Amino acid sequence: MDDVLTEQFVRNAWSVAAWDFEVEPGKVHARRILGEDVALYRDAQGKVVAMVDRCCHRLAPLSRGQVEAGNLRCMYHGLLFDPSGRCIEVPQMAKPPRALTVRTFPVVERDRYIWIWMGDAERADTALVPDAHWQVDPAWRSIPGYVHYEAANYLLIMDNLLDFSHLGFVHATTLGGGRSADIKPKIERFDWGVRVTRWYLNDDLPPFLAKVARFRGPVDRWQVYEWHAANNLLSMDSGSAPARTGAPEGHIVPEACVFHSVQSLTPESATSTHYFWTFAHNFELDNAAITRELADQIEIGFGEDKAMIQAQQQVILDHPHAKMTGIPADAALHHVRQLIGKLLV
Amino acid sequence: MDDVLTEQFVRNAWSVAAWDFEVEPGKVHARRILGEDVALYRDAQGKVVAMVDRCCHRLAPLSRGQVEAGNLRCMYHGLLFDPSGRCIEVPQMAKPPRALTVRTFPVVERDRYIWIWMGDAERADTALVPDAHWQVDPAWRSIPGYVHYEAANYLLIMDNLLDFSHLGFVHATTLGGGRSADIKPKIERFDWGVRVTRWYLNDDLPPFLAKVARFRGPVDRWQVYEWHAANNLLSMDSGSAPARTGAPEGHIVPEACVFHSVQSLTPESATSTHYFWTFAHNFELDNAAITRELADQIEIGFGEDKAMIQAQQQVILDHPHAKMTGIPADAALHHVRQLIGKLLV
Amino acid sequence: MDDVLTEQFVRNAWSVAAWDFEVEPGKVHARRILGEDVALYRDAQGKVVAMVDRCCHRLAPLSRGQVEAGNLRCMYHGLLFDPSGRCIEVPQMAKPPRALTVRTFPVVERDRYIWIWMGDAERADTALVPDAHWQVDPAWRSIPGYVHYEAANYLLIMDNLLDFSHLGFVHATTLGGGRSADIKPKIERFDWGVRVTRWYLNDDLPPFLAKVARFRGPVDRWQVYEWHAANNLLSMDSGSAPARTGAPEGHIVPEACVFHSVQSLTPESATSTHYFWTFAHNFELDNAAITRELADQIEIGFGEDKAMIQAQQQVILDHPHAKMTGIPADAALHHVRQLIGKLLV
Repeated sequence: MDDVLTEQFVRNAWSVAAWDFEVEPGKVHARRILGEDVALYRDAQGKVVAMVDRCCHRLAPLSRGQVEAGNLRCMYHGLLFDPSGRCIEVPQMAKPPRALTVRTFPVVERDRYIWIWMGDAERADTALVPDAHWQVDPAWRSIPGYVHYEAANYLLIMDNLLDFSHLGFVHATTLGGGRSADIKPKIERFDWGVRVTRWYLNDDLPPFLAKVARFRGPVDRWQVYEWHAANNLLSMDSGSAPARTGAPEGHIVPEACVFHSVQSLTPESATSTHYFWTFAHNFELDNAAITRELADQIEIGFGEDKAMIQAQQQVILDHPHAKMTGIPADAALHHVRQLIGKLLV
Repeated sequence: MDDVLTEQFVRNAWSVAAWDFEVEPGKVHARRILGEDVALYRDAQGKVVAMVDRCCHRLAPLSRGQVEAGNLRCMYHGLLFDPSGRCIEVPQMAKPPRALTVRTFPVVERDRYIWIWMGDAERADTALVPDAHWQVDPAWRSIPGYVHYEAANYLLIMDNLLDFSHLGFVHATTLGGGRSADIKPKIERFDWGVRVTRWYLNDDLPPFLAKVARFRGPVDRWQVYEWHAANNLLSMDSGSAPARTGAPEGHIVPEACVFHSVQSLTPESATSTHYFWTFAHNFELDNAAITRELADQIEIGFGEDKAMIQAQQQVILDHPHAKMTGIPADAALHHVRQLIGKLLV
Repeated sequence: MDDVLTEQFVRNAWSVAAWDFEVEPGKVHARRILGEDVALYRDAQGKVVAMVDRCCHRLAPLSRGQVEAGNLRCMYHGLLFDPSGRCIEVPQMAKPPRALTVRTFPVVERDRYIWIWMGDAERADTALVPDAHWQVDPAWRSIPGYVHYEAANYLLIMDNLLDFSHLGFVHATTLGGGRSADIKPKIERFDWGVRVTRWYLNDDLPPFLAKVARFRGPVDRWQVYEWHAANNLLSMDSGSAPARTGAPEGHIVPEACVFHSVQSLTPESATSTHYFWTFAHNFELDNAAITRELADQIEIGFGEDKAMIQAQQQVILDHPHAKMTGIPADAALHHVRQLIGKLLV
């Protein structure tokens, strides 16, 4: 695995810092993002502030601090910082100097995600925030998901998502299905990422839909997803329809199961990753049991991935000189790794 | 934080190695002191011996050994060392050679402390042992205390002790009191350390004295302490008297609460520290509940310090290039860090 | 301790990889051997295959794979490897290229041991497999034993086995006996290792034989063992006979207790070791309680060794510049360390 890629991160891009509900009014949420410790809290207007999580005085963590009228007080020696990071109060000091300032990061709250820009603040263009509207659109239902990879670089998780041939092995009895490995996907390469299209005609219903699907018998099913390299974000349209009812031609019958999944990887460190996800359905919107069942099934599958990927990461750490060898199924991941290499320049 | 200061220790000085009761007759007490592993035991006369905790033969730890008539036997291959560190018995060998010697360290047992000199033995002057007589003086009562900082360099704890403005934040509801941060201390600089004088006139009784004080209403209270840089030792006179009864002028009324605290930091490693302390009172000497209550209250406060300081240490380890920025409250700690820098030369 | 010796391993030699029963048909047994991760499984004929435990594709561990008709399938992306390590199946690929090959290691299964040759395969001569026939010979009975040293280099365990003077201290109340340290062994040096002969005439029965021996009173007892440097293997004839019944002259009376022990060290990493052992008896062959009692007693003793040796290893790691000093009892271990130094060239 390319060391340069694993130890650096694309900073001039929007990353998911947190789910909206993780940053509660009056509290400070600490999270390491792209190797930097960040304290997240809401100001007096409820707007999220992201501040480097160490006081500029003696480096105590600000996440042990206290929110006071939208400002953040360090609870070691009492310095008080406003939402811009400027220190506005120091015990025994009339006027805090400019040097007492903590770095803040641009933040956008949208689609239940709190997006953060860890690079140059002046390049933080809100027009670049990726679309994740399925998470709030009333035409869809989903439950916010989170997986903490304590021991894997984000690229290994990305590799996994860019090659679904693993579904037939890692997820044989859950998300997968026996023919996953044989499907040759259509790969479309873009400068922003890649689009992967997989069609399984006349296939079995995948195991995770057993309790969800409203029909039985052979299915035509599909996965069409885009990977956005700068944001490490997957946006996937997928579904299963009764076989030969026209799904490949774009005719989706009402009893089909149609989904949209958003999955975002935010590097925590070189060997750990935050994984935010939803798996939304657009049918039986008022059936909370369906929403829960889907989230549970996906979570089981993601647990299978995590076990394999963290084992793979351990091998890579233990044998830093071991070489990987390419196969055709690596096409998409090779393209995206090249894009990331360029974004790091 | 200055790396040179954190990774080196002042060796030519007396450090507290242990409480007297920790070294029991016939047993070996192992402790890492200034990065060195030391085996402590009592010889035939009860005098404490401090020996490097590794046999000179195959480096087995002597603290797994056995005390035999004041000598220490390694229980791996049976070498026997006398209190000078000289090997006096080797199986299958008539006369052990001089090369079989383990380094020992000068030790003084006084005021319930076992003091050790980790530097050049010929410079170990017992006249330099700091005064801690309050720990044995019948005019005072205290309970020996010990806190193990598993994850903090001693300098961070020293910084904490040299700037009591943190009392209003870290200890707001325990040792502190709201006005602690606003008190401007008097700082007297010496070549051996610093004296800090803090007076809080017409203040509230600090929370930790709620059950101890024999009066109610506003108080005049004080903290006057010396920090001895070479020994990392704090010696503090403190107390609370009913307001306007003359305490600032030196007239202490009988119902006042007067204390003397001795606190000693002994570096264990670059990131861990032994913290020995007492908080003696000179009133109600036969009221053991008072002695216990004071020790309990101080221990709660020291737990608050430890949580903050170890969090601060973690930030410093994770972000080694982060810079601290000075404020007026740092005056005493800056002076002592300079002294330590000179002692390390 | 010589760093070169501890961080390198003799690779062109047979090492014990596992007990035969550890590699079950249809399952994969993962073990780190000489710093390399190895996946062990049985092919269609039951023959053990040893393969590097990482898929050549994306480095996933093959020990998470699945045995299919004697081949091993990686359960990440489905590559299938035959017992020679050649990949014979890749999803979406007609003919896997030669580059998709995983390294395998020569293996011999004999005397209940699975031997592995971690060096150059062409030098793997089965005639060099050490003799351990006591483990299968119907004239002897033993129970396979295993100790995992999580935190000790194999050389420290070897040192322990090459100097039995420690029996009187580490094992005073178990395997030892008070006079162990005073016995001067006869040391015979060979280019393959060393033979150590120890006789204890008119001695007490060692404590671990209390329930096993069929006689009481003073004993003549012996330990005669060979250490094979390339294989880290001890092969020991030992026993206790009633004193003055001719044992030293080779006349072993029927009530004597005679044993043969095989003990093999396989480095796992520079600081961890696999320890395989048996302690066979050739009397009361059908008394399973005797076999069990002996294994239990030896295991207690080996626990005492492990506690001391891992403590010694910690001292060495913490104080890398500390020097050892030789005594006469080190004679055998010095010879074998020299041999190992030559084998590493």
